[in-house]
Amino acid sequence: MSKGEQTKAAILDEASDLASRLGLGGLTIGTLATATRLSKSGLYAHFASKESLQVEVLQYARDLFTDHVMRPTVKAPRGEPRFRAFFDNWLAWQSNRFAGGCIFVDAASEFDDREGPVRDELVRAERDKLESVALVISTAISEGHFRADVDPQQVAYELEGILLAHHHARRLMRDPRADELARRAFERLVESCRAHPA
Amino acid sequence: MSKGEQTKAAILDEASDLASRLGLGGLTIGTLATATRLSKSGLYAHFASKESLQVEVLQYARDLFTDHVMRPTVKAPRGEPRFRAFFDNWLAWQSNRFAGGCIFVDAASEFDDREGPVRDELVRAERDKLESVALVISTAISEGHFRADVDPQQVAYELEGILLAHHHARRLMRDPRADELARRAFERLVESCRAHPA
Repeated sequence: MSKGEQTKAAILDEASDLASRLGLGGLTIGTLATATRLSKSGLYAHFASKESLQVEVLQYARDLFTDHVMRPTVKAPRGEPRFRAFFDNWLAWQSNRFAGGCIFVDAASEFDDREGPVRDELVRAERDKLESVALVISTAISEGHFRADVDPQQVAYELEGILLAHHHARRLMRDPRADELARRAFERLVESCRAHPA
Repeated sequence: MSKGEQTKAAILDEASDLASRLGLGGLTIGTLATATRLSKSGLYAHFASKESLQVEVLQYARDLFTDHVMRPTVKAPRGEPRFRAFFDNWLAWQSNRFAGGCIFVDAASEFDDREGPVRDELVRAERDKLESVALVISTAISEGHFRADVDPQQVAYELEGILLAHHHARRLMRDPRADELARRAFERLVESCRAHPA
């Protein structure tokens, strides 16, 4: 990484934290300048506009998700263990990575009805994530861990629901049982998929 | 309802629609004045501040939720039929009531880390909703429809997850299967609770 790339990565890291606290829509060249004490003109050298800043922050967060969730997940054995690893890593990511909660969850509510490049990037990221989950589930079927009639899209949807409910329980409701509720919901989901119920 | 109350209700209805599109945080005396073509000074006669406007919109939406979801739900027979009615009415509410998606879902992401009266009101509304769901589930246990070892809080959490995933699938991903995925997830949840599996 060149010096310029390092600087930009450091700025994007600050920007992603700021976005998790203010919402992605609240992330502008101006709010980023205030938070980082960098000049606006200096930031404009890296980002052409507020929108391109927001898109790049999503791409940065997506790379982080790959590093923190996807890479460790594929190290787990194929099938149910890998599905479990996906859940564990995703839960840890959502709980710990950003001060203000998962940037993707917050941005989904914010941008679901704002057409444009930010929404497009968000949809791409979410589609890739759902496809990765579905692939892990398909593999659990082909490994014989999950039943052949399990619908990977359906299970991916339900897993997403468990994670969204966890975000809600933990961040809005500050429910001390949030982790326990998520884990029990996940166990029920796994059990319902198993070819050979425990 | 007096003339003044009618006017205020009409303004709150516009305001709740605006909040569903802009996010509750984007709802201010200024944006409301522009959307309704009412004068700011006229609006200040109804709402002391942006914050009190946002709190009143949440209270208004909560009353709507009572009318559209809670009241028709308690008309269904106690037990599993009432739990099904809750789900059906909630799904319809979330899908149809607001142009820009459920105001509570959007506000949860927006206000989960902003301390103050808006967050407090939101937490109260969500706690009441979760308690109502848990009560309907408890009744299904006492009616003998659901098993005695079913944990109402756990099932309420999972139901919330199904609805949040539906909001995500429908509004962000524009997934034509969103309703079907939600219904299948719900059937699995009900089946897992039943005292006498079908």
